[in-house]
Amino acid sequence: MQQDPDAHAPVRALEQLKEAVVRGELDAIAPLLDSLHPAEIADGMESMPQEQRSLLWNRLMPEVRGEVLLELHGDARSRMIDEADTADLIAAVRRLQGDELADLDAQLPPEILDGALRAMDKDRVRRYQQVRTFPDDTAGGLMDADAVAVREDVSVALVMRYLRRLRQRWGHMPEHMDSVVVIDESGRYKGMLRLSDLVSAEPGRAVAELMVTEIAPVPADMAAQTVARLFENRDLISAPVIDTDGKVIGRITVDDIVDVILSEGEHRVLGPVGLSAETDIFAPVTTNAKSRAIWLGIHLAGAFAAAAVVSAFERSIEQLVALAVLMPVVATMGGVAGNQTVTLVTRGLALRQVDRSNTLRVLSKELGVALLNGALWAVIVGAVALIWFGHLFLGAVFGVAMLTTLLVSALSGALIPVAMSNWGIDPAVSAGVIVTAIADVMGFLVFLGLATMLLL
Amino acid sequence: MQQDPDAHAPVRALEQLKEAVVRGELDAIAPLLDSLHPAEIADGMESMPQEQRSLLWNRLMPEVRGEVLLELHGDARSRMIDEADTADLIAAVRRLQGDELADLDAQLPPEILDGALRAMDKDRVRRYQQVRTFPDDTAGGLMDADAVAVREDVSVALVMRYLRRLRQRWGHMPEHMDSVVVIDESGRYKGMLRLSDLVSAEPGRAVAELMVTEIAPVPADMAAQTVARLFENRDLISAPVIDTDGKVIGRITVDDIVDVILSEGEHRVLGPVGLSAETDIFAPVTTNAKSRAIWLGIHLAGAFAAAAVVSAFERSIEQLVALAVLMPVVATMGGVAGNQTVTLVTRGLALRQVDRSNTLRVLSKELGVALLNGALWAVIVGAVALIWFGHLFLGAVFGVAMLTTLLVSALSGALIPVAMSNWGIDPAVSAGVIVTAIADVMGFLVFLGLATMLLL
Repeated sequence: MQQDPDAHAPVRALEQLKEAVVRGELDAIAPLLDSLHPAEIADGMESMPQEQRSLLWNRLMPEVRGEVLLELHGDARSRMIDEADTADLIAAVRRLQGDELADLDAQLPPEILDGALRAMDKDRVRRYQQVRTFPDDTAGGLMDADAVAVREDVSVALVMRYLRRLRQRWGHMPEHMDSVVVIDESGRYKGMLRLSDLVSAEPGRAVAELMVTEIAPVPADMAAQTVARLFENRDLISAPVIDTDGKVIGRITVDDIVDVILSEGEHRVLGPVGLSAETDIFAPVTTNAKSRAIWLGIHLAGAFAAAAVVSAFERSIEQLVALAVLMPVVATMGGVAGNQTVTLVTRGLALRQVDRSNTLRVLSKELGVALLNGALWAVIVGAVALIWFGHLFLGAVFGVAMLTTLLVSALSGALIPVAMSNWGIDPAVSAGVIVTAIADVMGFLVFLGLATMLLL
Repeated sequence: MQQDPDAHAPVRALEQLKEAVVRGELDAIAPLLDSLHPAEIADGMESMPQEQRSLLWNRLMPEVRGEVLLELHGDARSRMIDEADTADLIAAVRRLQGDELADLDAQLPPEILDGALRAMDKDRVRRYQQVRTFPDDTAGGLMDADAVAVREDVSVALVMRYLRRLRQRWGHMPEHMDSVVVIDESGRYKGMLRLSDLVSAEPGRAVAELMVTEIAPVPADMAAQTVARLFENRDLISAPVIDTDGKVIGRITVDDIVDVILSEGEHRVLGPVGLSAETDIFAPVTTNAKSRAIWLGIHLAGAFAAAAVVSAFERSIEQLVALAVLMPVVATMGGVAGNQTVTLVTRGLALRQVDRSNTLRVLSKELGVALLNGALWAVIVGAVALIWFGHLFLGAVFGVAMLTTLLVSALSGALIPVAMSNWGIDPAVSAGVIVTAIADVMGFLVFLGLATMLLL
């Protein structure tokens, strides 16, 4: 019988918390909140409607509220800021670290930001001002300004004495510290000294002998996504950030990179259906409806373009109504195949697998896939149409239209994301809707056009 | 002028490597490979066709090959194993750590796995056998068996002496070591001692005073996804893994969690278009075509079901061919709106935002969004149809069909992922295709049915 708390405890506590809130068992809430991490409380709040979020917020300790706010995502965070009491917000925000405040400041109303900055200690304000000079999606925006740095010419014993003094001054060590930065006399980056090497070294050895130099410093203006690739590929825990003079100004830790990777993933999942990664599933109906209405409108334009093509062949449909029965099949299949290509190529662009050097190869491969699948399904759908309508030439036209539409979908599915990416437009959001519209228009045009020429 | 290597260097080196391979400049390859990490070489290889991958593989040092293999994904890895020389593979694989081999063994042909195990040292074989008893998607499958553990009743000075001895024995310290595990006399987990606390503590203090106890140990059978949520929410760098008796058997480090998060993201991006996260964009056309043919076939079944509905209304279309023009618009919009709901709800299920306690609330919110957007677009499309065909009642039927189809799409888009998830089926792969089929069938049925009843 395992009675000790284990790593399953937060999952259970979160479920109990949600139940307690739904049932209005207010006494049960406080101990559950105590056992949860701010990020877990934020997770729980994101699975509740706003009135329940406010109920929890009011029961949180002031020192936890700032962390919870930091862990709420996009729209959920903005709504909580709108709903919360101004004095409570100032009390919550002033307890954050400088770099944490910099992650949040864009969403704070000016009176709350000013109030918090006036109440914060000088050191935190200074760090905040240092980090906020960099855009959020750069290394500078991600960094913490609390890098511990030592000189390369000192001994292990001296470093330890220095760290003990730092600990006395701060009362604790920085979070996620796996190494200290090694600098020269002018503050320029030289290498990293891993704590595991420090604790296992003889006290008399020099830092220069122990430091590792293969961790390249990250320029403050490097894009957050590029930093994420670097952490992924080199399995980093932390990396030093340098300014344009090569001076160390902070460090990035892997927990911030995990957030970058998660929000990239959200964007690539939600973008293709026209939703923002900020979307709050429990936002009010009107908020949700507005953003999605625009997306439906864009698709509607494509659908009406396709309808206009059908309209041009009204006579043909009157003569052979089987065309109306079969035409949506061609368009649907083109859209599905085109979106497979879009998804693969967009992923390839994001992972830098696809670039100018191999676009042609990707295109020819996708056309090859479309040719094989088009030929296969052309024969099958042609046979189905033949049996269904007893019309050999209708079957043949249906099959040829299917093959042609799949080829056009593959062509546009490969080229449109690459072109958008070259023009600096994000293909994850809009390449799919364009390729779907092309598949619809071409599907109807090829099928109805061929049928009109050959059958009627 | 910044001449020092910085974190941009790998990106540049990778581009130069790809160019050198394409141009066949073989002399340029070796120095570029030396400057890249195995994961970056693997990234580069994944953006090349197989013959270029083999060319690079043959130029890699034997000690790098194993790491590169480990960093290749899914199908790309399998193909490299198929193409490479058996002796080379054995030489590469035998250099891996035990837990690394456990990540790879399922894809290795038996003769290579056996050959590598015979050539590996005993300690690695033992670790391999320990890790491979756990499924890959559990904490046990993710862990490294190299946790460094100390007793709670010893002093800081003693721990440091012990670590110095370990270092002498191993020649290096374990990767990503930010803390040591604290255990009692029977090997049961008590807490974690952070290296940053260790290096900044007075030598005479006891481990029990310094250790942190809030990091809960991870049971070896915990699902990898649950472990990932824990690392995300608690910003962990490493966590101890325990067996059913509470004994520490290994540790999980954040770099393995980053891989879990990335492959979850891949699955949620590629699943909805019927692609596997293992998909290799440069796989042979036939491999690619086969997996996608199945997906097209599934969609084809839905499209033919919709066509059967249209077929039932052939008479109506013959009488009023405008129906054939407008019907695809209704079906398309239903599919787009339904897939927005599917994506949001599937994401909510994955993040545990949606569960039994709030399914009804999600459903009513999605129906509310559909009602608002349905009403908006019903009026707009109705007006367009009225102007286009000069037929008031056709416009009205078109609008009502649009509204109804959006409501049905929202209903199925919310309920189908929840139901699938309850039945243990992964909604990320198949919920979208089912909802698309329902939107098509219902769109045609409602529009053509209403039109037949009211207009003809």
